[in-house]
Amino acid sequence: MGLSAVAHVVMKLGIRADADQVTIDSTTLFVALLCACIVIGHLIEENRWFNESITSLLIGLGTGTIILLTSGGRSSRVLEFDEQLFFIYLLPPIIFNAGFQVKKKQFFRNFMTIMLFGAIGTLISFAIISVGFSNHFYPVEHHNYSKKLNIAFLEMGDYLAIGAILSATDSVCTLQVLNQDETPLLYSLVFGEGVVNDATSVVLFNAIQKFDVSNVNSGIVWQFLGNFLTLFITSTLLGIIIGLLSAYIIKKLYFGRHSTDREVALMALMAYLSYVMAELFDLSGILTVFFFCGIVMSHYTWHNVTESSRVSTKHGFATLSFIAEIFIFVYVGMDALDMEKWRFVSKSPGKSIGASSVLLGLVLVGRAAFVFPLSFLINLSKKSYSEKIEFKQQVTIWWAGLMRGAVSMALAYNKFANSGHTIVPGNAVMITSTITVVLVSTLVFGMITKPLVRFLMPPAKHSSSMVSSEPSSPKSFTLPLLGSRDDSEADTGSPTIPRPTSLSMLLRTPTHTVHQYWRKFDNAFMRPVFGGRGFVPYVPGSPTEMCVPLLNH
Amino acid sequence: MGLSAVAHVVMKLGIRADADQVTIDSTTLFVALLCACIVIGHLIEENRWFNESITSLLIGLGTGTIILLTSGGRSSRVLEFDEQLFFIYLLPPIIFNAGFQVKKKQFFRNFMTIMLFGAIGTLISFAIISVGFSNHFYPVEHHNYSKKLNIAFLEMGDYLAIGAILSATDSVCTLQVLNQDETPLLYSLVFGEGVVNDATSVVLFNAIQKFDVSNVNSGIVWQFLGNFLTLFITSTLLGIIIGLLSAYIIKKLYFGRHSTDREVALMALMAYLSYVMAELFDLSGILTVFFFCGIVMSHYTWHNVTESSRVSTKHGFATLSFIAEIFIFVYVGMDALDMEKWRFVSKSPGKSIGASSVLLGLVLVGRAAFVFPLSFLINLSKKSYSEKIEFKQQVTIWWAGLMRGAVSMALAYNKFANSGHTIVPGNAVMITSTITVVLVSTLVFGMITKPLVRFLMPPAKHSSSMVSSEPSSPKSFTLPLLGSRDDSEADTGSPTIPRPTSLSMLLRTPTHTVHQYWRKFDNAFMRPVFGGRGFVPYVPGSPTEMCVPLLNH
Repeated sequence: MGLSAVAHVVMKLGIRADADQVTIDSTTLFVALLCACIVIGHLIEENRWFNESITSLLIGLGTGTIILLTSGGRSSRVLEFDEQLFFIYLLPPIIFNAGFQVKKKQFFRNFMTIMLFGAIGTLISFAIISVGFSNHFYPVEHHNYSKKLNIAFLEMGDYLAIGAILSATDSVCTLQVLNQDETPLLYSLVFGEGVVNDATSVVLFNAIQKFDVSNVNSGIVWQFLGNFLTLFITSTLLGIIIGLLSAYIIKKLYFGRHSTDREVALMALMAYLSYVMAELFDLSGILTVFFFCGIVMSHYTWHNVTESSRVSTKHGFATLSFIAEIFIFVYVGMDALDMEKWRFVSKSPGKSIGASSVLLGLVLVGRAAFVFPLSFLINLSKKSYSEKIEFKQQVTIWWAGLMRGAVSMALAYNKFANSGHTIVPGNAVMITSTITVVLVSTLVFGMITKPLVRFLMPPAKHSSSMVSSEPSSPKSFTLPLLGSRDDSEADTGSPTIPRPTSLSMLLRTPTHTVHQYWRKFDNAFMRPVFGGRGFVPYVPGSPTEMCVPLLNH
Repeated sequence: MGLSAVAHVVMKLGIRADADQVTIDSTTLFVALLCACIVIGHLIEENRWFNESITSLLIGLGTGTIILLTSGGRSSRVLEFDEQLFFIYLLPPIIFNAGFQVKKKQFFRNFMTIMLFGAIGTLISFAIISVGFSNHFYPVEHHNYSKKLNIAFLEMGDYLAIGAILSATDSVCTLQVLNQDETPLLYSLVFGEGVVNDATSVVLFNAIQKFDVSNVNSGIVWQFLGNFLTLFITSTLLGIIIGLLSAYIIKKLYFGRHSTDREVALMALMAYLSYVMAELFDLSGILTVFFFCGIVMSHYTWHNVTESSRVSTKHGFATLSFIAEIFIFVYVGMDALDMEKWRFVSKSPGKSIGASSVLLGLVLVGRAAFVFPLSFLINLSKKSYSEKIEFKQQVTIWWAGLMRGAVSMALAYNKFANSGHTIVPGNAVMITSTITVVLVSTLVFGMITKPLVRFLMPPAKHSSSMVSSEPSSPKSFTLPLLGSRDDSEADTGSPTIPRPTSLSMLLRTPTHTVHQYWRKFDNAFMRPVFGGRGFVPYVPGSPTEMCVPLLNH
């Protein structure tokens, strides 16, 4: 009896130790790889072809190859792809940081353009990819296809899903090829579009998942749009409410006796709370929530905390986002070589190559189909030549948004795989196609982008006017939300013109007029309640505060 | 066929959505509870009875009760207790931060005392608890006990394990009752002891797990001590090597062109790498590794990065540690009410209460049995009266280390439960006893500690000599490692006395002499290679650097 108990305990310990060992093995490998990515990424920073995404992806691919060879072709990954890991832990820091660090002035000045590109553009791209892909494979090869691969044919919902999946541009990768100081307008447009596009794609994807494809009628488009708008608005409201709540709590509680660690912890936890609450309430606009929560926090909450908290949150959130990004790319690189899903595809390589090529082409066409027409419409509404989007800039916007990345991968796994495993062969083809599109677009398109941008917009042209417009250390936080400090940009003259706040003015320059009203409202009501710039006694002589103009100049 | 495919997809989605929902539910609840803990903890900060640990524990208990009542007595927890979650994610930030923020001068000045208390003291406490508990239950009630509960009797290894489990003091809770500015010596001693004690307990526990109890002979004690020392030394070396590697990489790569986010990410990842590598190499001294890696990083690496990185890492690591701490306490509070393990105990409540009382008594005795004798020995070696540990201070040291916390809980689960479930009734009793000891010691002993410390050492007595000895904002980092700046403490005169570095001197004042040699070595060899204070051009006028004396005064 004693012996069996010992044996039982030993066995239990043995099993647990093994399970631990696997986790520790893979964790150690991943942490070591991430360190390598940071060091190598830093070393080749000046290289014109590579960037951190490509480096991480290549390191992931290389490690995957080594594991594949040493394990005798059985497995290339050390962790199962886990959507939860991605959507609950990796994506939130990236998206929150995007909202937290965005240059709010630029973002809201180009708000209409960004929303047009991000929302309408994504819908156009989605429609073209879905319709294009289904036309290519549905009617002509449907029978052949399903018989060859011995599967149920792809549903209408699958075509819609692949459209949504491949409409999600990779804002992470995009940001690494555009220079914020050399091309501020483009950076702002592509960055803003990328964030809104992420949100739109996820909303779209979730709407499609709930969509009853068997019951298509004429009202369906309106119903769909209604759902989409409801989700978008409620999500935005939730994000703003939690952001304001955090500002209020920190202003009320901590005024006078600050505690840096508590403040930072509370900001991080409340930001995360907005994310998980959105998930809980089935608000699919998680990105919107998180993004808007980030904007509100950087506008109000961030100014209510101590100088140390400000530096810590700014760099802390950026660091978390940075680690999450390289983690995703290493992971995608390693996962791309997983044999399980390629096994089905290897039986009909031509079909898979065909599908991938068609999808890549549709991505190119789908983006062109909204960038150029929408730019034309936007240019029509602009009076001054300097405000218009030049053709070269349009080409850059088109090209810089072609990369597909981790969001596409995660959505594809969510739709076509069951907890990391690809059971249905038809689904395996969809996943390998998505991987191919992600790899090709990131590696090939990504490598070409930096030289292309440099060719289309030589830095010398812009750099002279941009010198010292942005102090290097306190990035986005030196600018108040839609503040009055001039960026050295096209429309610098406008704030000095006396502006009648009439309806005609609203129609002619809607953004500026809305901005005027917003600032009045912000100063009269919001700041006294929620704090923000100018409502906390600053530590005198602190480096951040010395170089920014006062609020009301 | 189409319909079944749809049904299949819908079913798959449904299942996945449910699993997600549970995770999201519990995550949202936990994040909201953590926010509540921070806010409430801040509000009652001035209260003399409560501290953050007790608040978090009570909030956890309260939430557990509510869940228990609403679920009809079925379950009180929303997350399974997961040792991996604890040992891989929650403990590392706490221990690393302890090493990173420790006042190195105080720590090394009292190094011998701390090591005596932390290592020898823990061994004494372990021996007393193990022997006392086995004497109480093994020979007299063994037969009765095992029959009543219908289990295999407790093994010799179990008694040893409970000794190691209950020798781990809760340094987190301890720190909240001692004030660093009012009682710097005590704070340093208890804090240092707590960290070494954590390491010792975990090493001890792992040594016992591998220990072959069936083969006890005379050489076993020496073999055990040998294992213990080997583990301790190799782990310390690994920690120091990785710490130095991080300093070297950042010094070489980033000199001249700093990138805050990369630096912070690299520091965090390399620190974590030291932890997971220690786990991988089966070095049980994970805490030692991590602790010494933290010390090396704060001595070298931290000085090689930008001012922003320094502020960010200091507060970022502290925040992570803070969140992990309150998470643990909320979790322990919620888990304490889990019905599964109390069900077995309810059949023989007297036995369980008896075991808990005996263990609590043994904890009290076990700590007294090393604090007073070791203090006596330490006092014998000290010449000056002011260096001796007074009796009042001894009582405070004894009492302040009585709390048992999350480390004990995690070790108990590791030993007596199988992935959160208590299968064997005898094991259930051990777990409920551990929970009882943790709850009683944290709540009852913890509440008494603050008033007791205030009674034994009235703040007025010390505060006059301590005023302005520590600038409030840059805490531990203004002091070089064993540096030359005087703390206003007992042995302030010593640096001005000319010290002959002879063997007799080494024997009389070993710490100071070792310190002299260390500083020479550090300046001549270590700093030129690994950087550290004074080897990086500082941002002029930065607040941290203005208020510290230069390195070589």
